[in-house]
Amino acid sequence: MQAIVKEKRAPGLSVKSVAKPVAGPGEVLIAVRHAGVCGTDLHIADWDAWAQGRVKPPIVVGHEFAGEIAAVGDGVAELKPGQLVTAEGHIVCGRCLQCRTGNSHICRRTQIIGVDRDGAFADYIVMPATNVLALDGIPTEVGAVMDPMGNAFHAVLTAEIPGSTVFVVGCGPIGCFAVGVARAAGAVKVLASDVNPKRLALAARMGAHVTIDAGKDDVVKTVLAETGGEGADVVCEMSGVPVALHQALAAVRMGGRVQMLGIPKGEVPVDFASEIIFKGITLYGVIGRKMYETWHQMRRYLTAGLFDPRPVITHAFPLTRIDEALAAIRSGDAGKIILEIT
Amino acid sequence: MQAIVKEKRAPGLSVKSVAKPVAGPGEVLIAVRHAGVCGTDLHIADWDAWAQGRVKPPIVVGHEFAGEIAAVGDGVAELKPGQLVTAEGHIVCGRCLQCRTGNSHICRRTQIIGVDRDGAFADYIVMPATNVLALDGIPTEVGAVMDPMGNAFHAVLTAEIPGSTVFVVGCGPIGCFAVGVARAAGAVKVLASDVNPKRLALAARMGAHVTIDAGKDDVVKTVLAETGGEGADVVCEMSGVPVALHQALAAVRMGGRVQMLGIPKGEVPVDFASEIIFKGITLYGVIGRKMYETWHQMRRYLTAGLFDPRPVITHAFPLTRIDEALAAIRSGDAGKIILEIT
Amino acid sequence: MQAIVKEKRAPGLSVKSVAKPVAGPGEVLIAVRHAGVCGTDLHIADWDAWAQGRVKPPIVVGHEFAGEIAAVGDGVAELKPGQLVTAEGHIVCGRCLQCRTGNSHICRRTQIIGVDRDGAFADYIVMPATNVLALDGIPTEVGAVMDPMGNAFHAVLTAEIPGSTVFVVGCGPIGCFAVGVARAAGAVKVLASDVNPKRLALAARMGAHVTIDAGKDDVVKTVLAETGGEGADVVCEMSGVPVALHQALAAVRMGGRVQMLGIPKGEVPVDFASEIIFKGITLYGVIGRKMYETWHQMRRYLTAGLFDPRPVITHAFPLTRIDEALAAIRSGDAGKIILEIT
Amino acid sequence: MQAIVKEKRAPGLSVKSVAKPVAGPGEVLIAVRHAGVCGTDLHIADWDAWAQGRVKPPIVVGHEFAGEIAAVGDGVAELKPGQLVTAEGHIVCGRCLQCRTGNSHICRRTQIIGVDRDGAFADYIVMPATNVLALDGIPTEVGAVMDPMGNAFHAVLTAEIPGSTVFVVGCGPIGCFAVGVARAAGAVKVLASDVNPKRLALAARMGAHVTIDAGKDDVVKTVLAETGGEGADVVCEMSGVPVALHQALAAVRMGGRVQMLGIPKGEVPVDFASEIIFKGITLYGVIGRKMYETWHQMRRYLTAGLFDPRPVITHAFPLTRIDEALAAIRSGDAGKIILEIT
Repeated sequence: MQAIVKEKRAPGLSVKSVAKPVAGPGEVLIAVRHAGVCGTDLHIADWDAWAQGRVKPPIVVGHEFAGEIAAVGDGVAELKPGQLVTAEGHIVCGRCLQCRTGNSHICRRTQIIGVDRDGAFADYIVMPATNVLALDGIPTEVGAVMDPMGNAFHAVLTAEIPGSTVFVVGCGPIGCFAVGVARAAGAVKVLASDVNPKRLALAARMGAHVTIDAGKDDVVKTVLAETGGEGADVVCEMSGVPVALHQALAAVRMGGRVQMLGIPKGEVPVDFASEIIFKGITLYGVIGRKMYETWHQMRRYLTAGLFDPRPVITHAFPLTRIDEALAAIRSGDAGKIILEIT
Repeated sequence: MQAIVKEKRAPGLSVKSVAKPVAGPGEVLIAVRHAGVCGTDLHIADWDAWAQGRVKPPIVVGHEFAGEIAAVGDGVAELKPGQLVTAEGHIVCGRCLQCRTGNSHICRRTQIIGVDRDGAFADYIVMPATNVLALDGIPTEVGAVMDPMGNAFHAVLTAEIPGSTVFVVGCGPIGCFAVGVARAAGAVKVLASDVNPKRLALAARMGAHVTIDAGKDDVVKTVLAETGGEGADVVCEMSGVPVALHQALAAVRMGGRVQMLGIPKGEVPVDFASEIIFKGITLYGVIGRKMYETWHQMRRYLTAGLFDPRPVITHAFPLTRIDEALAAIRSGDAGKIILEIT
Repeated sequence: MQAIVKEKRAPGLSVKSVAKPVAGPGEVLIAVRHAGVCGTDLHIADWDAWAQGRVKPPIVVGHEFAGEIAAVGDGVAELKPGQLVTAEGHIVCGRCLQCRTGNSHICRRTQIIGVDRDGAFADYIVMPATNVLALDGIPTEVGAVMDPMGNAFHAVLTAEIPGSTVFVVGCGPIGCFAVGVARAAGAVKVLASDVNPKRLALAARMGAHVTIDAGKDDVVKTVLAETGGEGADVVCEMSGVPVALHQALAAVRMGGRVQMLGIPKGEVPVDFASEIIFKGITLYGVIGRKMYETWHQMRRYLTAGLFDPRPVITHAFPLTRIDEALAAIRSGDAGKIILEIT
Repeated sequence: MQAIVKEKRAPGLSVKSVAKPVAGPGEVLIAVRHAGVCGTDLHIADWDAWAQGRVKPPIVVGHEFAGEIAAVGDGVAELKPGQLVTAEGHIVCGRCLQCRTGNSHICRRTQIIGVDRDGAFADYIVMPATNVLALDGIPTEVGAVMDPMGNAFHAVLTAEIPGSTVFVVGCGPIGCFAVGVARAAGAVKVLASDVNPKRLALAARMGAHVTIDAGKDDVVKTVLAETGGEGADVVCEMSGVPVALHQALAAVRMGGRVQMLGIPKGEVPVDFASEIIFKGITLYGVIGRKMYETWHQMRRYLTAGLFDPRPVITHAFPLTRIDEALAAIRSGDAGKIILEIT
């Protein structure tokens, strides 16, 4: 079968033919239809420091996807060939303290598809049945982006949203999804900031009441003005940019909550006294998706028609044109990019 | 001034002239513009067993209202004559364990206006400044029903609503408000039951996805069918009718939450094993409004335009026609009824 | 092997020889050392209405036990022969909404050992590896009662205990365990009621500050007097006796929490207005143990030496003397009774 | 009366005679018996940058105290001369969003006694009646340190303590109190670190199971070893020392909670990815005491005899020897220091 492979410990990705995998006991073989391209894939292609420390080539990349079940292994009763499905790409141990107490999203033995084992930029992928989720009518191009959408649902729905003002810092795909989730979950006002007007336009399309051009406007002053001088009840830091991270801490109200998802490169100096302690705020590190509360909530919103991520999907390419997909991400102008595989 | 007075320990209410009250230190004199008529007022008019045990005539009745500040007493700095306001009608001690730990809505020394002291069906009322809330642009006919709306906000927002299915049992005014709050707070599906088609139509106008005529349809079967066989995540019992209360317990999913607000007359036999314990559910008794979280959330939703109670207000009468207002409540066909006073 | 078997649809239990089971894939064979005898076993022996509707003879009874792993099936990596273990007796589907969102203790497809499939009153039992928990130094006679202890931990630790006053209604084994858990979890005052002075003495040994003889004293008045007139912050209803259930509701403070665990026979009339709604309280139905948070917490307290259930274990019998064990339960004077098997 | 006064915008404190204050309406005059000396008092004495920006001499300093009510102003019904009391030193507005929603500890208009208005190092102090709490049998030398004890109760009891492992970073008085609170609230293991062996000895006396000399031992490795390799469930950062703050983040388990109370001087560089986000942890900024939940919990533990802060009180001086008290704080060897006033 055809796949996008990280072949060597050097920059670049290859489109090449590899052996089709087989579903073992408790596993499912899925014919991939759509896959999402993520910044992580770019890190692997570029072979940056993180990738060098983590990825062991050769490996099929890609961790966001949806497709059709082609075969099921022994002992898989609840899934059937022909079903359209997506999957949680974090494969966890199931036995550690975290896995046994409802926190498998932070299992320390997590294996991520497309990073630690073969991934989804391929005609087929094998997944443990536990990780496979039926789409139940959700289109596969939407199913293909439920992994990053899930990060947004996790970030937003672990805060108290009904009646709250929510400020989303950074309007990449996950930030734009977060805007839509906050609206759907009953926020009374949603604000979003970015330096890129195209991304701000996407945030507005997803429902942001107020968009703030961080390159031109005073972000914190605007948030305070729009929230009666209090600051936002909930802030979702989706940018990983140090200056924006400080804006997140400055724009949250006394006693508010900051959901930290964007990954800064290197250390960021923090004034704990004025930015955190004297404000009495709560910070929460958002990683992955709650398994499987987040998926359950996300499927509910999608099937109810109360959340639609498609405005954020700005580009689609065939598998062979992965380089163009990566270039579009690098441009900073893209929303979410998907691959059309089958 | 003119007022509706419970004069004697016997059925009936009188419209008569009484002395205009005066704002003492820490108090506010409000010229009432609109007032809401409640089932409690009917109990007082009818002089039922509850009223006989609680109310000490003569007393001005009425506890739901909005109006304009006419004067402020000594030491009231944050409120000014001319401001349009509503008020929390529960006057609490401020010193007991409940009041000191954020639960003054269950202060055991609560005095309710129109029940324990002079109320709002009058040209003027005096309130402690602590209980007075600025309308900030909310119309007074809406402000007049924020007390019962607040019960609905309290009932709904103390459950986990984003992504949930919510079943409202009983579509009187508070039930209809609850439907709208659940929608605004991010419920994915809202179901509502009643025996009265007019009330079901109001619930549908407030946003119920599914209305169930409890006189004709199998309520529990319908809720199960509409929730994939699981039952509703959250049930709001707003009817106080024993058969409906059992439907509430049967229609909630395993591990779900039932918000109890409707007041049954007398005892209701409960099978704790099958209805509560083996289902692992949580029941919560909803009384009053959280002071003042509920008011804060409610004002936010109203000023954001995300919740509008006006479709539920079906009748308006002048103060002198209180008997017609009470008759409309007795008919069972009315939504919320207000009095136009000034 | 020797086992206690419910042979026929009629009262009685038989001690007889049955085939030794074999561990299949993912399963573990355990040589039982100690087993706990529960009221459920008595219901099955007596063949009451519940047992007639649920149990399908012939079946080995017993669901509380600890022992030594004798063999492990294919695919079981984390457990080894020779390990001392106990097990969660609720075998759940792992795929339903509840199982996928951290609530498998209320999975609707639960199979209970000794009730729905062969149980633990036998030389050997086979369990799914997922349900098996290493004792890590906890003695097997303690491991044998971790199932009912787990009910007590579940009931107590799902309430807010640090700094609270806790009232335990009913001092059977689970009630006595609950007293000890409340103490270990930081309650400032623990009260316990029962009609049996022997059970009250056990509760006192487990740490109850105040014991109330419900046959002699005014239970509610005593709780109020001991809690400054407020009532208890948390009440654990462990009796299932209607009069005691009403005492539970009367003795909880305004805004308090009642953990419902005792199973009343038939319906209990409840005055929702005065007992629940006007008090603003929360009721929670306690069933089973949280899988596996409760087990994790329980093992922590046991291995730290902060909780010791052994004072509650009042009797021990060999397997063949099950009738004496059941008679001791019937007497009402026993604490927890265990069987010594290997 | 005699008082310790910050007279001028320069280093130093003076013991001098000032006018005795008078209780106005709603106020209480208290004859101070014992007062606690705090690091804040040292900052004011030393006239550091923070003090220069905040304090407006002349002012009576001191914010931790207990004493006897000498007189009550008009409208104070619930307090009487002769009562022994302590007080919350944060005087809040009562009208802002935070004050109206149960978070007055972060009211932005807070006035602190001894910082923003006259304080407690004096024969008498006037306080608003709302802030005064009856000691109900708690000795005044204990009442005098309930302000910093309250910080410890706030830090510990806003985390989930029963069954948890708790690591306290920094064994100054608040850290030592936190050790004792964690024990009393049901932690299964409490660890404490400091560079000062005298302080570690105090922590051990307050109940720490494990003390770690941060100057000699590998702090993080020790915490991991003592927690089965997982890290602590809850970490209380009480030191404000950058290296210790990083140890706090490294020693908390995946998904754990870090209560931030110690105030670092200046900025601390944080690696958000590895220290917070990928660990899925929660940080909470602890400021003041919850008004008045924390006081309620604290009084409960003290009157129940389940927590005793007195081992931490290492020095007592008369008012006139404030310089010796400050010197003892500077030495780094002291626990809590109190002044004996009346």
